[in-house]
Amino acid sequence: MAVKLNFVPEENVVKVDEPASVSSLVHGHYGVMHKGVITLFPEEALYLMDIRNARCYDAAGNEYKFNDLAGKFPGKKQMARYFTFKDWRDRGLILRPVSEVQGKYGRNPVKKYPSSKFPAPKYAVRGLLFADDLVTVIDDEAVGKELYETYWLGQFGSYKAEQRGKLSKLDVYETLFMMNHCGLGLSNAKEKEVIKLAKKRRPDFLQMYEVFEDWRLRGYVLKTGFKFGTHFRVYFPGASPTKSGGEWVHSKHVIHVFPRSSKMLISEWARAIRVAHSVKKTFILAIPGEKKEGEAGEEKKAELDFLLYHRKKGGIETPKEDKPRFLMLSFSEEEYIGGEELAEAIVEAKEIGLELILAISDRETSVTYYRVKRFELPGSKYEYYEIEWEQP
Amino acid sequence: MAVKLNFVPEENVVKVDEPASVSSLVHGHYGVMHKGVITLFPEEALYLMDIRNARCYDAAGNEYKFNDLAGKFPGKKQMARYFTFKDWRDRGLILRPVSEVQGKYGRNPVKKYPSSKFPAPKYAVRGLLFADDLVTVIDDEAVGKELYETYWLGQFGSYKAEQRGKLSKLDVYETLFMMNHCGLGLSNAKEKEVIKLAKKRRPDFLQMYEVFEDWRLRGYVLKTGFKFGTHFRVYFPGASPTKSGGEWVHSKHVIHVFPRSSKMLISEWARAIRVAHSVKKTFILAIPGEKKEGEAGEEKKAELDFLLYHRKKGGIETPKEDKPRFLMLSFSEEEYIGGEELAEAIVEAKEIGLELILAISDRETSVTYYRVKRFELPGSKYEYYEIEWEQP
Repeated sequence: MAVKLNFVPEENVVKVDEPASVSSLVHGHYGVMHKGVITLFPEEALYLMDIRNARCYDAAGNEYKFNDLAGKFPGKKQMARYFTFKDWRDRGLILRPVSEVQGKYGRNPVKKYPSSKFPAPKYAVRGLLFADDLVTVIDDEAVGKELYETYWLGQFGSYKAEQRGKLSKLDVYETLFMMNHCGLGLSNAKEKEVIKLAKKRRPDFLQMYEVFEDWRLRGYVLKTGFKFGTHFRVYFPGASPTKSGGEWVHSKHVIHVFPRSSKMLISEWARAIRVAHSVKKTFILAIPGEKKEGEAGEEKKAELDFLLYHRKKGGIETPKEDKPRFLMLSFSEEEYIGGEELAEAIVEAKEIGLELILAISDRETSVTYYRVKRFELPGSKYEYYEIEWEQP
Repeated sequence: MAVKLNFVPEENVVKVDEPASVSSLVHGHYGVMHKGVITLFPEEALYLMDIRNARCYDAAGNEYKFNDLAGKFPGKKQMARYFTFKDWRDRGLILRPVSEVQGKYGRNPVKKYPSSKFPAPKYAVRGLLFADDLVTVIDDEAVGKELYETYWLGQFGSYKAEQRGKLSKLDVYETLFMMNHCGLGLSNAKEKEVIKLAKKRRPDFLQMYEVFEDWRLRGYVLKTGFKFGTHFRVYFPGASPTKSGGEWVHSKHVIHVFPRSSKMLISEWARAIRVAHSVKKTFILAIPGEKKEGEAGEEKKAELDFLLYHRKKGGIETPKEDKPRFLMLSFSEEEYIGGEELAEAIVEAKEIGLELILAISDRETSVTYYRVKRFELPGSKYEYYEIEWEQP
């Protein structure tokens, strides 16, 4: 028999008191039980109407359809929350409001990446900056070749055809890095001008460069991620363009830089992750930039949406027997995501001791999940995250 | 023997007069010959120095290295032009400056897409708009189901699981389309408010909607392209979510909307194309919006870069024997591309009667080519383009 929901206008809540319904809902881990009466959370009530033929009435006998009831609980991203709630439930899994968080769960292990040291060789070499292309050409063949072969700085000759040509080309990140660390001079620009030009092209240039330098100084090689739709592709310490055979031929990681101050449409954000995954690269998210300081005592909290229970051996996790596994942040396709907001959510998840899952409902209400895994780059002041596509 | 280049400061050009060199360059279709002396275009001179060990001197015997000579020909996207020139030449193919265009070549066939008519059924149905999610819910089960099954408007139940739920969800494009053409009313917003809300979320909303409506009215079904990293995925006239087996299960085309007034980094632009290609969809570019009118007599010309000769049966096309095949527009990864600029270039290519190729040099100077193919959607006032990844 279908569940009967009672809408109580005075308290603006939905309750269930019919014994058979109560027992079925308790079994399904819905709502909060108090003296034989269950009070449902809005998403739960809507879900029961949508999927389980529940019907809703007030004490006067007026029926409330889905939209009538939804209209009683207006709020930010109400349907993003509802569609992601529905999808998780449709998979046979349990989720609860994030307000039920209790203490620290310790279910968020942190991986450590390897680290070495960039030797910072000094050269007395000059290059010419082509301002409109943001590229520096070094026409000293011997130096250009050594920079490329020993440090994988610049591109000597052509990509995958080093013998085709005698020039070395540095991108603007390599240019600034070599000016800072390897004695490069430009015959037509000073460091300040390079930065000014690059910032004119992309306002987030310095944040991009900070990430580039952070990894380069730890022995990683960062080259353009253009072919993979990201900012950088990454080779681990020890990589060389001249070593052949297996290990160093392909990069396995790409980095996308998402400054705290930036904001982008979820659809554009997800697009970057999709390209990386389509070529089987690990997608690394970097969120550089200083934390925005709130007023004293007015700490800005990210608004996490749900506590997620997942699968376990032989069944599913439940609030009764298990600790929650993930925190969910719900979005819809045409919403904005901000670097600051995401960073805050990650910090909160870290404090709670759970991994964060971003759940994105597209315009057809199909939900895609991305798991955010923290890792450490030893010695770095930044945090980085692997973003994994997840099928719960 | 290496070619000897003569830099003539008075004319700011590079010439070659040594008979053996002249004959070799004529054979290779370099430069312009006049009375036994060849005048080279800047990219040609730089290429000969980079790849063919040419050395360059002025009459006083001063040597010019690559950067010295490049510094004599400053200009917009100089290295984007050089790297794309180099790549085409490295493939054994010929290219010439676009200034040598002669007349109409008629090498740009126009495909025709099918077209039918949207029947515009009228309903007396009301939905609730969730403003923050830009989604409309219809909780009239019978109407929602019919809209979905007959016209593929909205998503009934769940994506790929229509039986899961009784609601129909319209995205904001479907919402406005149904308000305009099918009698949909919203219980909490008028058309003007829908537009205002959507424009707040994405300023280009009306351009997006124009494209949506243009295709929908011609019998196509447009759904979110979220999973493919684009704005819309497209089903051809006759598609239905309930037909099973083969033909209509997968969309094969996606549409990306790039308004004339918008501007984006080449790297972001290319990312959208990459996702589509990685899932083997045809990428359709829509450039809606009115043409910007220049002052009278001051027609703004797009700056095309090169006339391209390609391969032919048994060899390569040459300026001596063949008409050019494509026009090239050269970019580098961290440049901006504007809708207006691209539209102008396409119009110019159309008038010249050649297809346009976008050549993008990434930060490692590796070049990616995209071919722009016009096609007609019968009855539409807009032009659309298929963008194909091309390996020359």
